[in-house]
Amino acid sequence: MIRVAIIGASGYTGVESIEIILRHPEAELTYLTALEAECGHAEDVFGQLKGRCDMEIEPLDFDKLAGLADVALCCLPHKVSMEFVPKLLDAGLKVIDFSADYRLKDVEIYEKFYEVKHTDTANLARAVYGLPELFREQIKGVDLVANPGCYPTGALLAIAPLLKEGLIETDSIVVNAVTGVSGAGKNPSSKFHFPNMNENLFAYGIGSHRHMPEMEQIAGEVTGSNVQILFQPHVGPFDRGIASTVYCQPKGKVDFAKLAGLYEDFYCCEQFVQIRKDAPPVKDVAGTNYCHVFPTCVKGRIVVFSAIDNLIKGASGQAIQNMNIIFGLKETLGLG
Amino acid sequence: MIRVAIIGASGYTGVESIEIILRHPEAELTYLTALEAECGHAEDVFGQLKGRCDMEIEPLDFDKLAGLADVALCCLPHKVSMEFVPKLLDAGLKVIDFSADYRLKDVEIYEKFYEVKHTDTANLARAVYGLPELFREQIKGVDLVANPGCYPTGALLAIAPLLKEGLIETDSIVVNAVTGVSGAGKNPSSKFHFPNMNENLFAYGIGSHRHMPEMEQIAGEVTGSNVQILFQPHVGPFDRGIASTVYCQPKGKVDFAKLAGLYEDFYCCEQFVQIRKDAPPVKDVAGTNYCHVFPTCVKGRIVVFSAIDNLIKGASGQAIQNMNIIFGLKETLGLG
Amino acid sequence: MIRVAIIGASGYTGVESIEIILRHPEAELTYLTALEAECGHAEDVFGQLKGRCDMEIEPLDFDKLAGLADVALCCLPHKVSMEFVPKLLDAGLKVIDFSADYRLKDVEIYEKFYEVKHTDTANLARAVYGLPELFREQIKGVDLVANPGCYPTGALLAIAPLLKEGLIETDSIVVNAVTGVSGAGKNPSSKFHFPNMNENLFAYGIGSHRHMPEMEQIAGEVTGSNVQILFQPHVGPFDRGIASTVYCQPKGKVDFAKLAGLYEDFYCCEQFVQIRKDAPPVKDVAGTNYCHVFPTCVKGRIVVFSAIDNLIKGASGQAIQNMNIIFGLKETLGLG
Amino acid sequence: MIRVAIIGASGYTGVESIEIILRHPEAELTYLTALEAECGHAEDVFGQLKGRCDMEIEPLDFDKLAGLADVALCCLPHKVSMEFVPKLLDAGLKVIDFSADYRLKDVEIYEKFYEVKHTDTANLARAVYGLPELFREQIKGVDLVANPGCYPTGALLAIAPLLKEGLIETDSIVVNAVTGVSGAGKNPSSKFHFPNMNENLFAYGIGSHRHMPEMEQIAGEVTGSNVQILFQPHVGPFDRGIASTVYCQPKGKVDFAKLAGLYEDFYCCEQFVQIRKDAPPVKDVAGTNYCHVFPTCVKGRIVVFSAIDNLIKGASGQAIQNMNIIFGLKETLGLG
Repeated sequence: MIRVAIIGASGYTGVESIEIILRHPEAELTYLTALEAECGHAEDVFGQLKGRCDMEIEPLDFDKLAGLADVALCCLPHKVSMEFVPKLLDAGLKVIDFSADYRLKDVEIYEKFYEVKHTDTANLARAVYGLPELFREQIKGVDLVANPGCYPTGALLAIAPLLKEGLIETDSIVVNAVTGVSGAGKNPSSKFHFPNMNENLFAYGIGSHRHMPEMEQIAGEVTGSNVQILFQPHVGPFDRGIASTVYCQPKGKVDFAKLAGLYEDFYCCEQFVQIRKDAPPVKDVAGTNYCHVFPTCVKGRIVVFSAIDNLIKGASGQAIQNMNIIFGLKETLGLG
Repeated sequence: MIRVAIIGASGYTGVESIEIILRHPEAELTYLTALEAECGHAEDVFGQLKGRCDMEIEPLDFDKLAGLADVALCCLPHKVSMEFVPKLLDAGLKVIDFSADYRLKDVEIYEKFYEVKHTDTANLARAVYGLPELFREQIKGVDLVANPGCYPTGALLAIAPLLKEGLIETDSIVVNAVTGVSGAGKNPSSKFHFPNMNENLFAYGIGSHRHMPEMEQIAGEVTGSNVQILFQPHVGPFDRGIASTVYCQPKGKVDFAKLAGLYEDFYCCEQFVQIRKDAPPVKDVAGTNYCHVFPTCVKGRIVVFSAIDNLIKGASGQAIQNMNIIFGLKETLGLG
Repeated sequence: MIRVAIIGASGYTGVESIEIILRHPEAELTYLTALEAECGHAEDVFGQLKGRCDMEIEPLDFDKLAGLADVALCCLPHKVSMEFVPKLLDAGLKVIDFSADYRLKDVEIYEKFYEVKHTDTANLARAVYGLPELFREQIKGVDLVANPGCYPTGALLAIAPLLKEGLIETDSIVVNAVTGVSGAGKNPSSKFHFPNMNENLFAYGIGSHRHMPEMEQIAGEVTGSNVQILFQPHVGPFDRGIASTVYCQPKGKVDFAKLAGLYEDFYCCEQFVQIRKDAPPVKDVAGTNYCHVFPTCVKGRIVVFSAIDNLIKGASGQAIQNMNIIFGLKETLGLG
Repeated sequence: MIRVAIIGASGYTGVESIEIILRHPEAELTYLTALEAECGHAEDVFGQLKGRCDMEIEPLDFDKLAGLADVALCCLPHKVSMEFVPKLLDAGLKVIDFSADYRLKDVEIYEKFYEVKHTDTANLARAVYGLPELFREQIKGVDLVANPGCYPTGALLAIAPLLKEGLIETDSIVVNAVTGVSGAGKNPSSKFHFPNMNENLFAYGIGSHRHMPEMEQIAGEVTGSNVQILFQPHVGPFDRGIASTVYCQPKGKVDFAKLAGLYEDFYCCEQFVQIRKDAPPVKDVAGTNYCHVFPTCVKGRIVVFSAIDNLIKGASGQAIQNMNIIFGLKETLGLG
C-alpha cells in the first residue's frame, strides 16, 4: 500500500483527494494536515466524511511525516507551496504539488503573474509537468510533479493533437472557458456568496489569468515554438466542471474529414480522454477523471470543445493519476 | 410625491426597496445611506442600478435628512435599528423599520431571543405591527411601523383565518418552512458560499429561531389567547421565496368542504393574498408582493401551504405597502 | 464475481446502478436491458459512461439472460415490474426489485394507491422489504427483495429507534420532506422543465403520496401496531437528496438527554447510518449510500432530521447493499 | 391608452410581455390568444398572474381582434408567424413580430437556415429590424417591426461602435455566448429536463445557429460591407440572461485608451445601453431591459463583453421599447 499524506487537507482539492484515496485499492491515507485553525477530526471538518474517515487533520509536523508517508499530495496555494515542498522532498517523500509554484519554468513570468519572488528555483528546474497524456514517460518515478492547473488541463488536451501535427497558427488561439464555482476555492467572498453567484455568469481575469502563461508554456513545449493564447475564463452557477471552447486558425489547407480520426489516433491509448461526436456537456464528466473532447470546423476555423471536472481531472484526480504513474501502479486505480 | 429615505441602503432589502421606489409613481428616493465602508455611487454599489439611479449612498447625516424626506425605510439590522429609529422620529419622519426591534412587545422575550438589552421601549410600545391584512386600520397615519419578519408573514397569512375563527388547537401548530438564501443577507459566510449551498438544503435555528416568538405573539393577538408554534426553518438552493407548510389540529369537527370558502371570504378584499387550488410554487410569487395560500385537510389535520417572496412581501414590498397605507395612497402603488 | 443484469438500465436508477457495479470489486455487469426505444450502446445512451462501459443496452431476452446473470437489479416502474419479476425468478435469478410492486403486503392498499390490479400476489407474499438496517437477517439469501422507496428509507431510518422503543405516539407522526428533482425520473415534463423548476420549490402529492402507506406498513411492523403518518413531500431545485424533518409526540415523559445515546446505540453497528450533532445538510450525503440522522427535541416534541441521496441509499446503493447481503459479501463493497 | 393584443400569449415571451404591459402606464392588454390547447384563464395558465390579470387567453379570432387592439405583439414561432402577420396587418394593427420571419432580408438565406419556404416576401421587404439603438428613425410609425433575436441583440450592441467606426476586421469576428435556459422556450425536452440541465453547460448549434446569419446581415448593414461572424452559443444552468464575449481583430493601429470613450460617445443618449468598467455579470441585467457592455483589449485583440436578459432586452422588453417608439411614447415607459 502506498502511504499518502495530504498537505492542506482542509480545502476542496484536499477533501477530493481524501475521497479518491478512500476508494483506492492500493493506497491509504496516513497523514492529513492543515493550518491550525482548520484542523479537527476529518468527519467534523467535512460532514460528508462522517463514518468514512476516522482521522485527525492536524498541523504539519515534518518529523512525524517522515516515517509515515511515501507521497505527499500538496494541496497548498501558490507561494505557500514552495516553502513546504523542499522540506517534503528532504523528508524523502515523492511530492505532487497542486500549486502553480513548479509549473512555470520561466521564473520571470512566474514572478510577474504571481507577484511573488520564487524561492525554490532548484526544484523548479527538475519538476515535471504532470499532464500524463503528454508527459507520461517523464513522470514515471520522478520525485516532484507539478500538477497542472484546471484550465490548462482542459485547454491543452483540446489542442494538443493540433499543436503536435502543426495544423494551426500558433499566434491566434482563443481559449474561451467557463468554470464551476468550486474553482474559486472554499473561502467565502461577496462574488461567490450564493445569492450573488446563483443565476449569474461573468467573465473575469481579463488578459491577466495566471493559467494563460501556463497554457502558452506547455503548448510551446509541444510545438517547439512560441505559442500565443488569448485565454478568457468565465464562472457560471454550477459546482464542478470546465467547458472550454477553443478557436483556432488552420495553417494552410486542413482536411476537415480527417480531424476526428486525428484525435482518435492521438488519444487511442488514453483511458481518460474520450473523443465525442458533439460538444461534451460538463455534467458528463462531473465527478470523473475524464476529459471529453470534440474537434470540428466552423466557417474555416477549427473549433475544439472539451470538458473536465476541475476538481478531479483538473486537480485531485490528475494528481492521483500521476501518483499511480510514479509508483508504477495501474494508471486508473481509484479513478474508475 | 412622497420623499423616501432608505437607511441601510447597501443590503438586499435596501436595494429591493430602491428598485420598488424607482417604479413607484408617487414616491421618490431623496436620500440613501449606509455605513461608510459600503457607501459610493448607487450604480457602483449595485451593478443592476447602472443608468437607473444617479444618487450617492452616503453616511447618514441627521441634519441633512430632516428636510429631505417624509419617510424612512429603515433597513438596519436589529439592535442597530433601535439606536437610529428614535432619531429618525425626532427628525419628523415616518419610520418603517425592517428590524425586529419594534416587533416583540414583550421586552423579556425580545431580550432573551435577541440577546441584547432593549433601549427604546417607549417607541416599542407605540409601534404598529405592519401586516396590513391583519392590522390595516392601526397602520393608517401611524408614525412607526414594525415591518414583519419574512417567516411570520408567510406563516401568519397562512393561518390567520383559522385562528380568527377558532378552528384549530393553538398549542400544537407546526410551521415547517423553506427559505431562499437571500434571507441570510448579503454577508458572505462559509455556509452560504456557493459551492457549499448549491445543491444543498438543510434545517437550522432548531428550537431557537427568532421568528418563532414573533409568530406566537401575533397569533396570540389574533386569537386573544396563548398560542404555541413549533417553527422549523430550512434553507434551500434558490434566491428568493419562502414555502411554508403549516400543520394544524382542528378543534372539534371541521367542515372541510368550507375551508376554501372560509379563506376566500377572509381574504376577499385583499389584493396581495390569493387563494390557490393547489400548493403554491414559490416561483409563482418570486419578484412579487403576493402571498399565495392553499388550505386543505389531510388525514384529519388541516394543512395550509403558503408562498411569498421573502425580500418583497417578506420585507421591502410589505414596507412600501405600509408606506402607501400610512400616507393614504392606493395600497398597491409601485407593487404591481 | 457476481454477475449482474440491470433490467431497465436506461433510467436514472439504472445508470446509477451501472456506475456502482463498475466500481464494485466482486460484481460485474453482464446484461443491460431497456425498452427498444431506449436501447443502444451504453456510452451513447449515457454520455458519462463514455470509455467506461463497453456494453449494449438491449431489449430483454429471457433466454439470453438465464445463463448470463446471478442477480437482476430490476429498475422498472411499478406495474411493469410485476410482469417481469416472476420470469426473472423463474430464470433462476435473485431479484432486487426497485418498484413498489412487492413492498405493500396489503393488496387492497396497493391497488388503491397504485390504481392497478396486483398480478403476482404469490411472490408478493415472500418478498422481503430491503431495508438492511431493520431487516438484515431476513434479506440474507432471499430470492426476492423489495427495495424500499426513497422517502420511506429516509423517514423510517429517522424514526425506527423511537418506534422500536415505543417512545412516541403512533397516531400523529408528521413527515415533512424535500426531495431533489431526480426523484421524478428521467421523463421530461412541464413541471420539471428547467426554467419552471429552477429557483422553485413546491409541495405535491398532498394526502395521496404512495410512499405514505409504505411508511405506515413498515412502521407498523416495527412497532407491532397501527401507525398513522401524515407524509408531505416537496420538491426543490437540486438534483439529489431527500431532507426529512419528522415531528413526533412523545409518549409520556421522555428523557431528552438520552435521545442521542439511544440513536447511537441503535445504529452502533450500522456503517451507513450516522448520527449527527446538528441537522444534516443533504449535500453531505449526496453521492453516497449514507443516511445522516439528527434527533432532538423542540418545545416538548421530538423532531428528527435525516438526509439521504434518493438515487443511492434511496434506490441503487441500497439495492447493491441488499445484493451484497444476499450473496454473503461484505455489505459495504462498491459503496465506499 | 394603447390597446395591446398578444398573439401567442402562452409561452415565455408571451407572459413576459403580459407582465410588462400590466406595469405600463399608457398601454393596456385587450386581447390574449394562444393555440386552443393552451387557452384558459390567464391566472390558471400562469400561476404568477393570480389576482393580477383577469383575462381569458383564447383562440385567435380576427374579427374580434380588429376593433379591439392597436398593436399586436406577435409571439409566435417562425413559419407560423408569417401566416398570421399579413392578417394582423390587414386588420389594421401595428405588428411587432418576435419570430425570425421578417428579420432576414435575403430569402435564400432564410430558407436555408429555417428550412421552410418564405410565404410573405411582400411584407418582409418593408419590415424594419427593431433594434432601436441602431434603427430608431426607421422604427418610428412603421407598421411592421421584426423584433431582433436574443443573441443578435447582445452581440450587435457589443460591436456596433467598432463596426460603425471601421475599427475591426470584418472577416474574423468570433461571438461566444452563453444563454440561460428560458431561451429554449417552454416545451419540455430531455436536454432541458431539470436533472439533465442543472449543474450542466454545453455548446450547441455548432456552425448552424440561425442567429448567425441574422448577426451577419445587420452587421453588414452597419458597415456597408460583408461581415463574417463565427457565432458559438452555449446554454448554462440559469433562467435568464445572455453573456456574450466577442473577439475582434483590430484593423491597423487602434488607440486602446480611446475605446471606452468611443463606446461612451456612441451610446451616450441610449438609456438601455450602459458602458461598464468590467465584464458585466448577467445577473445585473436579469429582469431588466438593459444591455451592459464592456469593451477592452487583450493581447492585441479587442474583446467586448455584453449582457442582456434574453426574455426582456432580447425579446419582450425590446418589443415594447419598439411599441413605445412606433406610437411616439416615451421610449422607456413600462421598462423602468
